[in-house]
Amino acid sequence: MESAAIGIFDSGLGGLTVAREIARALPGESLVYLGDTARCPYGPRDLGEVRRFVVEIGSWLSHQRIKFLVIACNTATAAGLTLAQRAFPVPVIGVIEPGARAAVMATINRRVGVIGTVGTIESGAYSAAVRALDAGVTVFSAATPRFVEIAEEGLRLDIGPMEGLLADSADVFVRPSFYEMARDYLNPLKRSGIDTLVLGCTHYPLLSASIQQVVGPNVQLISSAHETALEIAETLARRDQLAPPDRTPHHRFATTGDAEEFARLGGRVFGATIDGVEKVTLEALTAHATADLLALLDDSATGETSCA
Amino acid sequence: MESAAIGIFDSGLGGLTVAREIARALPGESLVYLGDTARCPYGPRDLGEVRRFVVEIGSWLSHQRIKFLVIACNTATAAGLTLAQRAFPVPVIGVIEPGARAAVMATINRRVGVIGTVGTIESGAYSAAVRALDAGVTVFSAATPRFVEIAEEGLRLDIGPMEGLLADSADVFVRPSFYEMARDYLNPLKRSGIDTLVLGCTHYPLLSASIQQVVGPNVQLISSAHETALEIAETLARRDQLAPPDRTPHHRFATTGDAEEFARLGGRVFGATIDGVEKVTLEALTAHATADLLALLDDSATGETSCA
Repeated sequence: MESAAIGIFDSGLGGLTVAREIARALPGESLVYLGDTARCPYGPRDLGEVRRFVVEIGSWLSHQRIKFLVIACNTATAAGLTLAQRAFPVPVIGVIEPGARAAVMATINRRVGVIGTVGTIESGAYSAAVRALDAGVTVFSAATPRFVEIAEEGLRLDIGPMEGLLADSADVFVRPSFYEMARDYLNPLKRSGIDTLVLGCTHYPLLSASIQQVVGPNVQLISSAHETALEIAETLARRDQLAPPDRTPHHRFATTGDAEEFARLGGRVFGATIDGVEKVTLEALTAHATADLLALLDDSATGETSCA
Repeated sequence: MESAAIGIFDSGLGGLTVAREIARALPGESLVYLGDTARCPYGPRDLGEVRRFVVEIGSWLSHQRIKFLVIACNTATAAGLTLAQRAFPVPVIGVIEPGARAAVMATINRRVGVIGTVGTIESGAYSAAVRALDAGVTVFSAATPRFVEIAEEGLRLDIGPMEGLLADSADVFVRPSFYEMARDYLNPLKRSGIDTLVLGCTHYPLLSASIQQVVGPNVQLISSAHETALEIAETLARRDQLAPPDRTPHHRFATTGDAEEFARLGGRVFGATIDGVEKVTLEALTAHATADLLALLDDSATGETSCA
């Protein structure tokens, strides 16, 4: 079991920030990553549609000899975590609960901000997860949808990390106009006196230095990517399913979009060269979603994710 | 802030298993413990009544210069955690979420058992907490109310730990008749194929070796006491509020019952001598529950703890 891989998926490249943190925390673990670039972004989509994507991709990954399934996308977690946990034979973890838990632990004044896509913020999943852990914490949320395209644009610009960043940072270059827009998004959160801000989208760690600059040094940023990696490490350790850290891992990367572009931009996010990216067609994905699994979609349409 | 104490309370002696684990994980931290022995046990009581006790004792502890409040009692956590998190100026942690989280991480076959008092089991708080973390885990619960009196009786017998136990175990001696009763309680859980069993009452770690003998070696026991201590350690570390581990702590112990008996039996559970136990009268406790706080009791009577 410890030689099985960790399955990870996202709407595109953002989840590679999670994969990067997992590879760093667990260097002996093999990863299988699917980026659904052809249907990116998930953020503005109807949650029911995203739930169907979760079933399709989760089924595909379940067939790749994995021991753990990671939904490395906040929108997909908000929409389909509960469903995936019921549907698949491997344990499934999302990125919302680890981020919420870290925020509850970190906040001192008990005022926590969350930024994410429209889908994630409107689902209320972070507020619910934080309040389930500590009903004394107040959550201030803001949708910052344009951050995804800015992070992707930064990747395409390929100017390299900004000066002054740590060498191991995945941060991308942003245009000066970013800061004005970011202030519009973030100033209301700042004024509400938060001391902790959850980056509730797996693209956002690519902008963390710029976001930190806007919110100021007194607000602690929480990266769901990092927290999720820690949670996976703890879970595998408790189950005695860890790969030895000195084992050479075999990573596989797949995309529904352009394999060459995924390799080029993805390597930048993952922090290491990505070779031999597999192309998975949407037809191949859809074929994995059996009638049994799709029937679960109807059962889960009634807000079952509210506590997840 | 790091010199403030950790406040802890329980219906009596059971919460000292939590205090013991906190003292072991965080040897530099000072503790203030209140055991509400005069009103023990909480398990068979109405949850509304227990909620009032939480307000009274939480208020008393909030006045003792604490940085953290621990509800070291599963029944009181199920009844009043959410309320306490809203009511008090310090962060409040209960014993249910840490135990549920550890069980979700530990289970491989995704079948988790929980034992606790009637109040804890009937509240459904463990099932809700487990499902919120992993909707793919099935929870099998059983109330084992007589375990509390058996643990207390074992303490009073004062025969010392059973042969073969680790030297640092807090386990008490149990009569041979315990095993028959325990099999009646636990065999249905065993037959349901659980691989993990949460000791959902802070008295139960005193019986862990005996319970392990009944459920067999293939079921992993989860001690909420231990898990709660780990969570407190992680939280204080993230907040940079840890006392240096080489600081000499100043523990205070108080009881609403007999101070001499509390010192004698409590020292056995805590694993160290308990000196100068303070007697706190019920009148003194009640005086701390202000009208403002008691008003919260009405607001929280509608099952707000379901996700906690």
